[in-house]
Amino acid sequence: MLSYTLEEIKGWPLYEQLYQHIKEDIMEHRLYPDSPLPSKRSLAKQLNISITTVENAYNQLLSEGYIYSFPREGFYVSDVSQTPGMAIREENLAKQAEYKRIHPDNSKRSSATKTLVIDNKGMIQEKSFKDMYLGADDHKEFFADFTSNATDPNTFPFSTWAKINREILSTEQLKLMTNSPSKGLVELRFAIAEYLREFRGIDTFPDNIVVGAGTETLYSILIQLLGYDKVYGTEDPGYEKIAKLLEVSNVKNVKVPLDHDGIVPRDLRYKGVNVIHCTPSHHFPTGITTPIGRRQELLKWANEDDYHFDKKRQSVFLKTIASDKYIIEDDYDSEFRLSGLPIPSLFSIDNNEKVIYMNTFTKSLASTIRISYMILPDHLRDKYNETLSFCSCPVSTFEQLTLARFIERRFYEKHINRMRNSSRKKRDLLMKSIKNSVIGNFSEIREEQSGLHFILDIALGISDETFIKRCLDKDIKIKAISRNNFMINYSSIPLDRIEEAVRRLAECAL
Amino acid sequence: MLSYTLEEIKGWPLYEQLYQHIKEDIMEHRLYPDSPLPSKRSLAKQLNISITTVENAYNQLLSEGYIYSFPREGFYVSDVSQTPGMAIREENLAKQAEYKRIHPDNSKRSSATKTLVIDNKGMIQEKSFKDMYLGADDHKEFFADFTSNATDPNTFPFSTWAKINREILSTEQLKLMTNSPSKGLVELRFAIAEYLREFRGIDTFPDNIVVGAGTETLYSILIQLLGYDKVYGTEDPGYEKIAKLLEVSNVKNVKVPLDHDGIVPRDLRYKGVNVIHCTPSHHFPTGITTPIGRRQELLKWANEDDYHFDKKRQSVFLKTIASDKYIIEDDYDSEFRLSGLPIPSLFSIDNNEKVIYMNTFTKSLASTIRISYMILPDHLRDKYNETLSFCSCPVSTFEQLTLARFIERRFYEKHINRMRNSSRKKRDLLMKSIKNSVIGNFSEIREEQSGLHFILDIALGISDETFIKRCLDKDIKIKAISRNNFMINYSSIPLDRIEEAVRRLAECAL
Repeated sequence: MLSYTLEEIKGWPLYEQLYQHIKEDIMEHRLYPDSPLPSKRSLAKQLNISITTVENAYNQLLSEGYIYSFPREGFYVSDVSQTPGMAIREENLAKQAEYKRIHPDNSKRSSATKTLVIDNKGMIQEKSFKDMYLGADDHKEFFADFTSNATDPNTFPFSTWAKINREILSTEQLKLMTNSPSKGLVELRFAIAEYLREFRGIDTFPDNIVVGAGTETLYSILIQLLGYDKVYGTEDPGYEKIAKLLEVSNVKNVKVPLDHDGIVPRDLRYKGVNVIHCTPSHHFPTGITTPIGRRQELLKWANEDDYHFDKKRQSVFLKTIASDKYIIEDDYDSEFRLSGLPIPSLFSIDNNEKVIYMNTFTKSLASTIRISYMILPDHLRDKYNETLSFCSCPVSTFEQLTLARFIERRFYEKHINRMRNSSRKKRDLLMKSIKNSVIGNFSEIREEQSGLHFILDIALGISDETFIKRCLDKDIKIKAISRNNFMINYSSIPLDRIEEAVRRLAECAL
Repeated sequence: MLSYTLEEIKGWPLYEQLYQHIKEDIMEHRLYPDSPLPSKRSLAKQLNISITTVENAYNQLLSEGYIYSFPREGFYVSDVSQTPGMAIREENLAKQAEYKRIHPDNSKRSSATKTLVIDNKGMIQEKSFKDMYLGADDHKEFFADFTSNATDPNTFPFSTWAKINREILSTEQLKLMTNSPSKGLVELRFAIAEYLREFRGIDTFPDNIVVGAGTETLYSILIQLLGYDKVYGTEDPGYEKIAKLLEVSNVKNVKVPLDHDGIVPRDLRYKGVNVIHCTPSHHFPTGITTPIGRRQELLKWANEDDYHFDKKRQSVFLKTIASDKYIIEDDYDSEFRLSGLPIPSLFSIDNNEKVIYMNTFTKSLASTIRISYMILPDHLRDKYNETLSFCSCPVSTFEQLTLARFIERRFYEKHINRMRNSSRKKRDLLMKSIKNSVIGNFSEIREEQSGLHFILDIALGISDETFIKRCLDKDIKIKAISRNNFMINYSSIPLDRIEEAVRRLAECAL
């Protein structure tokens, strides 16, 4: 708390009052073990007392071991609860020694300081003090996670990113402090438009582009634009998160099955879908690429008039109304098509403003940089400008500007090429390893030509569940998308772990 | 486009085909003026032709002036449309000279290159080429904008921020590449909890904190948690954005009037509100601070049972059900209370998990860094963990980690103190300037004791509209919140503009 009321009381000096307050807060765990205390100067200012008063109080607490200090670092709260048998002062001395050992240069304090605690089975455990105050939503890390679409940490262009960062922080301060337009920083939308024109054959204007912080924020805008009364369709199987998002966003949503070419327009009609989310370039997770013929059928569906039951006449009277159907084209990993001709996007062959194009930098750059975008057809762009431009862009201008410069200066293009090469290497090694291992004899690889994942069909002699459990025991995470069909998403797995990961898979399959 | 199909045709060399394609794209404006072309190497790789072929095509285009180049920079598209009378090549030479003048070190190319264009009145205008492809959503900048809650660009701690940035980019790469938990990076939530405990007297755990990218993302989570069937109330007058957000989010929302102490519980009952958004520390825009008595009345309201019409019995039968009422406490500028005792937050005096605390770094750090957070009561935290943990945190780990380190190392605390001092100076100068100017005689300042804005009541001899229009002509933006009552939000105005801004206000008022 450290917001105490100190009073002039005869015989009870201020410093002693302060000492008492802080001590109480420590003993009653209102101040966390190992958490920093304010500096003497700042506490004095805050409580409107002299620095000497604070100094006296801190010295008293120090000498009694309630707090400890590191040279030139400040004061920290001792861990009084976890050391019932041990003298607090001694522990503090040990901590200081350990600190000196870890930080011979005194440059900074480790936030991962470990504490010995007694768990509920009476066992002594080494725990960081943060563990004690946090829920269990930290991610477990695996030796290899074939279900993760995170990017391989080794591929991120740290030095270029840092260089651009440094540059804009020193030369573009005013721009960084100016609120970005609602749809995103002009520089970034311009860079995206240029990039799409050059590499994806998509013709659009920055004004039609909306920058978001991941699928969640773009979807919440889309639902606001397209309506809460619409029926939203998602692919089955598909990217489960979209279905969940629609569910929690309180809109009607249905799952639409696929045939070997992707979504079937007949099913859309049958299920009364108004807005369909699909991944025609590279279906997730099956890897299907929707051929041009089916793409045209989908566009035809989107342009059909709707039939509408006329309630007034109280009869089965069908009346046509203009189509309010849309296709959301999620082009999430088109950059990673590893061979074959690029297929024109649905967006670029749509003449009637029926397709919303969506893409993200979370696949191509880093899953931890939350920047995604969509292209709105003109009439939806106008609706956005009218009704939603009061919203703030959720992405910080710092990262928008860094990314814009990164694309403009053609680093993004180079990065994609490097990522494609690295993916190709990984894919080749993965396939070679599978073929050379025992599972090569009773498995089949499907849809390996595009994107960052493929399907491995293993004719297992055991149940999928048993296989998955065995893999987990060997620190490998894998998921079945249907009986014996496992998704192999290799984007997050470093090249040097691939052979070992396959060896473990093979062990588990036998 | 630059994704051409080149064929082996006798008598029509590949380089000429390529030259033709690019020339056509330039002439038909499929390639923007001044936009960069791919490097020779990358285009060759992309089209599967030799670098020499690309070189020959580029040389041809260069010599005919369709493209131009800067040394060690690459090739750019000429502006062929805007210079009907002028030889393209000469213009390119001029551009190169200008480029050399601006960038003697060749270090980078300015993205603000100007082009002379002829506007629709036949006048020649200097325009950046970006202007030509963008919508009109760029913000106008004013000499002084009393309506803006942006932060003063001069106050942002650029050098510390840059230092931490550089450090984490070089030493914490794996952490930066690891997806943040749904509720936000552990380090950041921990730092926020510590900060709140120490400076705001709020006792909470990192596990209850949800990090978001501004009000929009937090509200979309809150509506998902609290329900689409609830009645949401906002303060009237109040922060208009919240009401708009509720509107577009398709939930029922009502405006609740204020008395001189803030929201009145009676009105909440009367209007059937389930969830009320309020700013008890410092009401926006009136500046009211809700006293402790009223705060307790609000909590009492939130704990009352709800009455419920029993449809089954078809009679006016009232049945009590457990309360599903909540208070969203928006503490947006509590850090900037300039004098007087801090008032305990509603959150900290709530014993029944009825208050959701919300705060943001957009006021205290920079409006362009989109990081905000809320504290969920335990049962809502549990609901979040169960139903929404599939969502990704919208804030990039890069900025979350930077901010966490910034708070942990007590830079945030120092920054707030500096900001408070700077605000106090601004406020004092503003009030002194108003008192010393002619409007000092017929105006009154209200609620100046807290936060970053106050109300100026000017007994104008002209209409508010005329006054506002006159101010606009003098590059001053100001807004009335009721007849003759103007909001003076001074957060975005640099200290050295304050006296001049008041001088202009006075001129307009006469």
